Amino acid sequence: MKILQANEQTSIKRSVDNGTEEQRKIVQKIIEDVRKGGDDAVKSYTEKFDGVQLQELKVKNEEIAEAYGQLDDSTITILQEAAENIRSFHEKQLRPSWMTTEENGSMLGQKVTPLDSVGLYVPGGKAAYPSSVLMNVIPAKVAGVKRIVITSPPDKHTCKIPPAVLVAADIAGAKEIYKVGGAQAIAALAYGTQSIAPVDKITGPGNVYVALAKREVFGDVAIDMIAGPSEIAILADESAIAEEVAADLLSQAEHDEMASSVLVTPSRTVAEKVAEEVQRQLKTLPKHEIASQSIENFGAIYVTETIEEAVETVNNLAPEHLEILTKNPMSLLGQIRHAGAIFIGRYSPEPVGDYFAGPNHVLPTNGTARFSSPLNVDDFQKKSSILYYSENALKDNGEKIAAFARLEGLEAHARSIETRLK
Amino acid sequence: MKILQANEQTSIKRSVDNGTEEQRKIVQKIIEDVRKGGDDAVKSYTEKFDGVQLQELKVKNEEIAEAYGQLDDSTITILQEAAENIRSFHEKQLRPSWMTTEENGSMLGQKVTPLDSVGLYVPGGKAAYPSSVLMNVIPAKVAGVKRIVITSPPDKHTCKIPPAVLVAADIAGAKEIYKVGGAQAIAALAYGTQSIAPVDKITGPGNVYVALAKREVFGDVAIDMIAGPSEIAILADESAIAEEVAADLLSQAEHDEMASSVLVTPSRTVAEKVAEEVQRQLKTLPKHEIASQSIENFGAIYVTETIEEAVETVNNLAPEHLEILTKNPMSLLGQIRHAGAIFIGRYSPEPVGDYFAGPNHVLPTNGTARFSSPLNVDDFQKKSSILYYSENALKDNGEKIAAFARLEGLEAHARSIETRLK
Repeated sequence: MKILQANEQTSIKRSVDNGTEEQRKIVQKIIEDVRKGGDDAVKSYTEKFDGVQLQELKVKNEEIAEAYGQLDDSTITILQEAAENIRSFHEKQLRPSWMTTEENGSMLGQKVTPLDSVGLYVPGGKAAYPSSVLMNVIPAKVAGVKRIVITSPPDKHTCKIPPAVLVAADIAGAKEIYKVGGAQAIAALAYGTQSIAPVDKITGPGNVYVALAKREVFGDVAIDMIAGPSEIAILADESAIAEEVAADLLSQAEHDEMASSVLVTPSRTVAEKVAEEVQRQLKTLPKHEIASQSIENFGAIYVTETIEEAVETVNNLAPEHLEILTKNPMSLLGQIRHAGAIFIGRYSPEPVGDYFAGPNHVLPTNGTARFSSPLNVDDFQKKSSILYYSENALKDNGEKIAAFARLEGLEAHARSIETRLK
Repeated sequence: MKILQANEQTSIKRSVDNGTEEQRKIVQKIIEDVRKGGDDAVKSYTEKFDGVQLQELKVKNEEIAEAYGQLDDSTITILQEAAENIRSFHEKQLRPSWMTTEENGSMLGQKVTPLDSVGLYVPGGKAAYPSSVLMNVIPAKVAGVKRIVITSPPDKHTCKIPPAVLVAADIAGAKEIYKVGGAQAIAALAYGTQSIAPVDKITGPGNVYVALAKREVFGDVAIDMIAGPSEIAILADESAIAEEVAADLLSQAEHDEMASSVLVTPSRTVAEKVAEEVQRQLKTLPKHEIASQSIENFGAIYVTETIEEAVETVNNLAPEHLEILTKNPMSLLGQIRHAGAIFIGRYSPEPVGDYFAGPNHVLPTNGTARFSSPLNVDDFQKKSSILYYSENALKDNGEKIAAFARLEGLEAHARSIETRLK
């Protein structure tokens, strides 16, 4: 793992695959076809891309019951316990509507309302990610969203959605699940088909076609962020244990070749020990190939002069995950401006948050923690402003409001006020 | 104004101008040129599109002082009073960071941090909109954003930005203002030039080129919503005064030809009286042409069987602005699910909120109130999750977390936990 000097240009930004013009055209065509052809178009694309012929798109209750039978009881218990922790954390994000009253009798406020419906895209592929189902569905449920839809491509061999995904969906409280993947799933969620009613917001990760489709439908429905590759930054001083630091860097690197694992430390000794440990631990990893490439291309150890400079480097990186492994980690929290999730101390390695503790694992990547937040309850609610002016309030302020309107050349606005003042 | 029967298809959605392929290419070229050419490219586009040759992009302090001299004292006072109301309302949106403690010594929480920098685009053209400056800058200021940048195209004749905009910016607390408009302004804000440092988020309305540029840079920086044409829905019963209802419909219609003004009422008498009043009042409006076209194409009066049906029609519309003009308007508030801002009772006509009361006038348009909120302090802050697991917490839960990781095929995640459990 390369050891470098940190400077102001130090960045984890990777160029994200935004798709080619050709891919964009393909996605536009799929969306158009689904809008016109509905279920038939969805089924024909599912046959084409997933190699599965479907009679019905919707997952049956029996399939969900069957999925429970395919998991160990201990696995089900862990999923339930994780769900409970996630629910408990997200309930603390809930905010009430509020209203203020003024002496002149006016009232102003903010009303918080859940979205009517949301759709979660769950990618298919080699592994099933039930944690992703919990992390997306539970905040929506806590927010009060009535209709929560999941779409996921069916497996080519079983023609089904993996049991862990179905069980996680059931535990989280999502009852409406469709065996549809790719851009056709996004189109169906955005515009509806005969069997899939449209939703107001679409969340969840996906491949480049899914990401392009989300970009296309953005505006007609809401979307979450377009997720980039994952990353971790570890801020460590000489008290950090190299074996643990290396294990955490590798847990990020195994995700995919584009993942980025970065250590920032004022200690050259720690830097060198961690570099060695990474090489040692890499050898025995099942995902050796992926992790090696990630470490080679997007891994780095940045050595700084001081711990303050290390903190500033972390703020420049704005990492998705940040671990603070220093003697007194809590004392640095106030200085961290940009990070998706902050893991404090050696007993809080990143996987604690990926699966179990409660905070969301859907986090801003690729430097976007500068302006974005973890997925949270607010993402599934919206606010309405409330204005109630009393007669006195309008009498006191009406002329000023009318004057302001005329300053902007909007006479009808002024008259709307003045017709009440007569 | 046409009187129709409301039904489930009743909608205010207008097809928004998303630009042509050719316009998109032009915008991409401008962005590329600004990224490469910096200030020179910005100046050359400003000459080309705004007809103004600039030496310096930045507005000088003297120009701001001069702007004060060009406004009436009473205007300045109104701007200051409006700013104070807006500040006071948005301060109530502020939320603290929070942390919970568990019996096993763990702590979980959410840290709230302002964005480092934001840029506000202020359109040029016929009228100046100081209210838009107040409504965008103040929430950012309240959120704690340190660097707030404004860009706006210079006027062709004066080579300057209108005095009301400069004074509003100064009152709101934005000190860094550039005479740049169009896609070149968005590119400069997103990627920076020699004299304009890049920002983390761009807000504010603009023409189709500005909207396309915001779409292009989305992801590299955050953007607010892409605003569509404005609209109002008025929910009225037989107690509503036709003259006032008509005045309010027209105050929306004068904005632009695409604006939509809709009345929903169970009273056919009110419907007919309002239709007459609209015709009568239209005649004397300075913006007669615009308002007539808007009413003709996107105005409608929907008559329902009952007040409940009227409420449901309003929820289907999800209007940007909603006025409730009924005998007991407050009692309907709980049933309104989708609306950007809700104006209650006859002394709260929309212009009260457009300029003065305090809630934001940047609102979700074109039905997007189903899933979007008024511009607010949250838009200028982001959250970081905080996770601190105690040694006990990891001992109690570590094996479960490792098992979950292995269920998803992520061995290095499991090892990151287990290296601490040895």
